[in-house]
Amino acid sequence: MRDSRHESPNPVEKLAPKAVVGRVSLYLRQLEAFRAQGQVTISSNQIGTALGINDAQVRKDLAFFGQFGHPGVGYRIDELLTALRRILGIDRDWPMALIGLGNLGRALLKYRGFGDRGFNIAALFDNDQTKVGMRFNDLVVHPLDDLPKVIADKNICLAILTVPAEAAQRVADQVVACGILGILNFAPMPLNLPPTVGVVAVDLSVQLEHLAYKVLNTQGGISYLGSTFRDEHDSLE
Amino acid sequence: MRDSRHESPNPVEKLAPKAVVGRVSLYLRQLEAFRAQGQVTISSNQIGTALGINDAQVRKDLAFFGQFGHPGVGYRIDELLTALRRILGIDRDWPMALIGLGNLGRALLKYRGFGDRGFNIAALFDNDQTKVGMRFNDLVVHPLDDLPKVIADKNICLAILTVPAEAAQRVADQVVACGILGILNFAPMPLNLPPTVGVVAVDLSVQLEHLAYKVLNTQGGISYLGSTFRDEHDSLE
Repeated sequence: MRDSRHESPNPVEKLAPKAVVGRVSLYLRQLEAFRAQGQVTISSNQIGTALGINDAQVRKDLAFFGQFGHPGVGYRIDELLTALRRILGIDRDWPMALIGLGNLGRALLKYRGFGDRGFNIAALFDNDQTKVGMRFNDLVVHPLDDLPKVIADKNICLAILTVPAEAAQRVADQVVACGILGILNFAPMPLNLPPTVGVVAVDLSVQLEHLAYKVLNTQGGISYLGSTFRDEHDSLE
Repeated sequence: MRDSRHESPNPVEKLAPKAVVGRVSLYLRQLEAFRAQGQVTISSNQIGTALGINDAQVRKDLAFFGQFGHPGVGYRIDELLTALRRILGIDRDWPMALIGLGNLGRALLKYRGFGDRGFNIAALFDNDQTKVGMRFNDLVVHPLDDLPKVIADKNICLAILTVPAEAAQRVADQVVACGILGILNFAPMPLNLPPTVGVVAVDLSVQLEHLAYKVLNTQGGISYLGSTFRDEHDSLE
């Protein structure tokens, strides 16, 4: 699985925290919007104002990955876009396996916004015999026994897990044994995997708890803390 | 909408960063698992080891919200569980509106793990005339014109937005005008809302970009950085 797609063109010294990477994704989207409006250069203040993020935070986040600004000019949008895409790894294609064709899995199949970032669902798997052989988006559902062959044939390195919680660890072990390098895990339980496998967990009840916490502490009857409210992309280091 | 449900029993001085709140959600789940095994007290080291988080980080996160440890004892699990539930706001019910009955919305209707944390989908909305009047989970789909009445009748304060990106801002403005205090936004675009409204964004392409970044930087052909790998719940402040 270690072909050229996985060579980082600009290996960083240490891994950026999740919050920084999340904000870089936002900067990328905002830069694309500015470029679509015909803008050529931009300041950290303009990026920050558009996103509700402090301009010092914008500069600090970008500086984590390199020196991108030009004195007296700011950032050149095209140049910064190319750099951010390379940093995030979306300057290449990422064929993915979707495992678990329940409601969530089928919803993700129709989710727009994966493909235009290079993330393409290239193979489907489910152990439910009533689903094996069905077709979605011109892809046929394979049984999990086919994982080694299909993952190798299609050069797949990421897996989306939309399986029940009780099956998640077992299925994760199976895909890792097939050489999968990263897992987007929707099952509401943590996975225990080798440190060489990247895992990003999407636990929707965690997100709702964060929302409840925010609502209680910004709008709570006793303590109205509007001035300390931070937006959804906060978590300043 | 400012009834007693929204009074924070223990108002904090400043809002905790997203990463801290996310880890508190993890601690809660781990404590529940330990209690289910019959354990009564626990150390920060045991919590940390189970989750792959440094024990100093565990203590620092909990200390953000108060003094919970007992010298020579550690944490009393029941006591800490009660405190964490109160902090996260899951010591109460949160009736929610689900807006947008496309594939993702319908998948969320069947997602287990909301209800047992007090998050209950109590009303459904869609502007598609072919969906209005349909029933899911014993709930009927209302048109968006019914938002003010249904939100008031059912005392709803959170909304889940699973609408197309181009409709998200307009729908968000509508629900906020009805007194909604928090939005879980699945539409892949940032919302511009008053600072008194809590927003948590779930952008799946952002999560995939973070996964791609991790894979490139932990397993990348050139730079094998296994030792600096951090798990999905990192982002130490």
